[in-house]
Amino acid sequence: MAVGAGALPDFKVVKGFELGIASAGIKSPGRKDLVIMKYPEASTVAGVFTTNAFCAAPVHIAKKHLTNGKSQYLLTNTGNANAGTGENGFAHASACCEAIAQHMDVVAEAVLPFSTGVIGEVLPVDKIIAAIPAALENLAEDNWSDAAEGILTTDTRPKGASRQFEYEGELVTVTGISKGAGMIKPNMATMLAYVATDLNVEQSLLQQLISTAANKSFNRISIDGDTSTNDSFILVATGQTKLSLNNGSGELFNKFSSVLNELCAELAQAIVRDGEGATKFVTVNVEKALSQQEALDVAYTIAHSPLVKTALFASDPNWGRILAAVGRAGVENLVLDELEIYLNDVCIVENGGRASSYTEAAGQAVMDQAEITITVNLQRGNCNEVIWTTDLSHEYVRVNAEYRT
Amino acid sequence: MAVGAGALPDFKVVKGFELGIASAGIKSPGRKDLVIMKYPEASTVAGVFTTNAFCAAPVHIAKKHLTNGKSQYLLTNTGNANAGTGENGFAHASACCEAIAQHMDVVAEAVLPFSTGVIGEVLPVDKIIAAIPAALENLAEDNWSDAAEGILTTDTRPKGASRQFEYEGELVTVTGISKGAGMIKPNMATMLAYVATDLNVEQSLLQQLISTAANKSFNRISIDGDTSTNDSFILVATGQTKLSLNNGSGELFNKFSSVLNELCAELAQAIVRDGEGATKFVTVNVEKALSQQEALDVAYTIAHSPLVKTALFASDPNWGRILAAVGRAGVENLVLDELEIYLNDVCIVENGGRASSYTEAAGQAVMDQAEITITVNLQRGNCNEVIWTTDLSHEYVRVNAEYRT
Repeated sequence: MAVGAGALPDFKVVKGFELGIASAGIKSPGRKDLVIMKYPEASTVAGVFTTNAFCAAPVHIAKKHLTNGKSQYLLTNTGNANAGTGENGFAHASACCEAIAQHMDVVAEAVLPFSTGVIGEVLPVDKIIAAIPAALENLAEDNWSDAAEGILTTDTRPKGASRQFEYEGELVTVTGISKGAGMIKPNMATMLAYVATDLNVEQSLLQQLISTAANKSFNRISIDGDTSTNDSFILVATGQTKLSLNNGSGELFNKFSSVLNELCAELAQAIVRDGEGATKFVTVNVEKALSQQEALDVAYTIAHSPLVKTALFASDPNWGRILAAVGRAGVENLVLDELEIYLNDVCIVENGGRASSYTEAAGQAVMDQAEITITVNLQRGNCNEVIWTTDLSHEYVRVNAEYRT
Repeated sequence: MAVGAGALPDFKVVKGFELGIASAGIKSPGRKDLVIMKYPEASTVAGVFTTNAFCAAPVHIAKKHLTNGKSQYLLTNTGNANAGTGENGFAHASACCEAIAQHMDVVAEAVLPFSTGVIGEVLPVDKIIAAIPAALENLAEDNWSDAAEGILTTDTRPKGASRQFEYEGELVTVTGISKGAGMIKPNMATMLAYVATDLNVEQSLLQQLISTAANKSFNRISIDGDTSTNDSFILVATGQTKLSLNNGSGELFNKFSSVLNELCAELAQAIVRDGEGATKFVTVNVEKALSQQEALDVAYTIAHSPLVKTALFASDPNWGRILAAVGRAGVENLVLDELEIYLNDVCIVENGGRASSYTEAAGQAVMDQAEITITVNLQRGNCNEVIWTTDLSHEYVRVNAEYRT
């Protein structure tokens, strides 16, 4: 139950970035559940992490190790989030880092740990440590497809994207994978994304680039409004091309940032398309708001409304629910008469009520599609925002109600 | 599908407050869908209304007529919300007020109009005007039960509460009815509540009393987080007892305000118990927050989380979802180790993880019940808040997906 095509791309390798996969037996036996990524010491690395106050032990440690600026390994286990695990959780995440450090003769701070899976259960640290040698032996630049599978939990399909562009005769590659099927999976601590490029990017600039990209991709999706304790997005620049990016302007910066933003949007949208019980892929487009925040407030109020989401599931062009959601979004001095709302190109609301040109048949024709754009034109200012979401289906309730039974 | 007992109370009449019911044919033929309430000219009246920016035409007019301080009639139609109806909506609501004014020889400003039902359809004003004489002829003090039925839309049962107390040998009555089965019903513009007392209450004090009561009742419930375009709550004091309330302190004030708050909480809880697809009645109790807003933020984040709600539906003591909801509620510097979470009396989270005393059997025993209290102790301050909500069931999706089909 996922929306749209979902085949993995033809992954282009990123010079210097290797991936190794193993089966630690955390999930069902033989299933890939441990992924190690390795990159040169000279790489720059940037990350953005969950804003949940109760972020998991591995997130705390990954953030700390990242600030040291000496990382060379990303270690991901699935099947267990190591969240809500108290002091033990920290000791377990540290032990995993230490195991790689010993094998590869680096400091434990060179390893950033990531966990995704069930909250509140003890991390099977022995299984992970036992499987680390196999993952290290498996390291190779062309292992992106296996890694995309190895980071999944209850996702129905792997997610990846890959881009290349030329600049001054040099080929630059940007490749990434993501996982997640709800902002929180049922008790799953959820979203992970890893993107690598062989471009040489100065550290603070890389952090700026990842923040911008996250704000236009992973921070613009919502399946159920819940935010996981483990969400992490890591961007690695291995610096294996001759090109260097040292300041936030110019042709190379523009080219790279637009490719990066596009790739991250694709990875983020892949998470929504694979959303729990999703039967629709919905773009919510808010235009002419007074501020970006105002545009986002309106967009998320629509995207989180159970009534809008059930109408989407039913393919019901129920414009009153969208109108009511806009009305309760907390926008000051909103004037109903100036507002316009569209389903794709069909105007459904104008002049304070149902558009005079609107017909139920036209609305129905849009709603019958699997991919729908809701556009709200507030006619107040110059700020626009776009987010992506899904419908609320019987399958969503079933998946989340039956998760532990 | 409603939680708990739902019989109407033994309604005590409020001296001077009459109710008349008629069938205007807006809903299915013969069904009560028009209610007029009448009270003496000397009464004081206070109201609180929806915060939705797109409040319906009758809400605008009711607010305006209320400020004149001369009202004597409340006119309610169900089956049509007269919301999202543009200029026509205002003309239609005014025409209904005018019809009562002509019959009863009062000014149109003496009538406060209320509509509840489908959004965006033209108000059948002719049917309403034609039925007004029958409702006026039906006016009587002991018509509360019929009125409780007459204001319903898709509610599964009528809702009412009644209280009496004695003060200095004088009997004071407070009686009310409410309707609503979601903060928005599927496209229904929803919550209405009318409460009357025969106490004499000074106007500004009455407004203060209704605000306090609303904040402890109708503003503390959530079924799906959506806020209707038509929500209205009206409090009328007919002044037919010898007692007068002129200032916000003293024994009579304390007695009356506590009875009023209690009665409003009962009416509000009745709406939650009749929530769409509700199989659970859930009290969310947040203690020791730094501020009331902080307590409410945590409470509503839990109450609106689809993952918490589906776990409630499944009777699954899935403490990780509650913990994750608290973590994303936006509380600054929240310390996980200090937090305690309880299901009824069973501690599920303490010291940063699952409580050591917790057993799945103990959690399951609580979750199997139809009425559950989730308590979060933040251990940060002295502010407490309580709200009431429901679970998210298959029936909720079915009702809302199939509403217009």
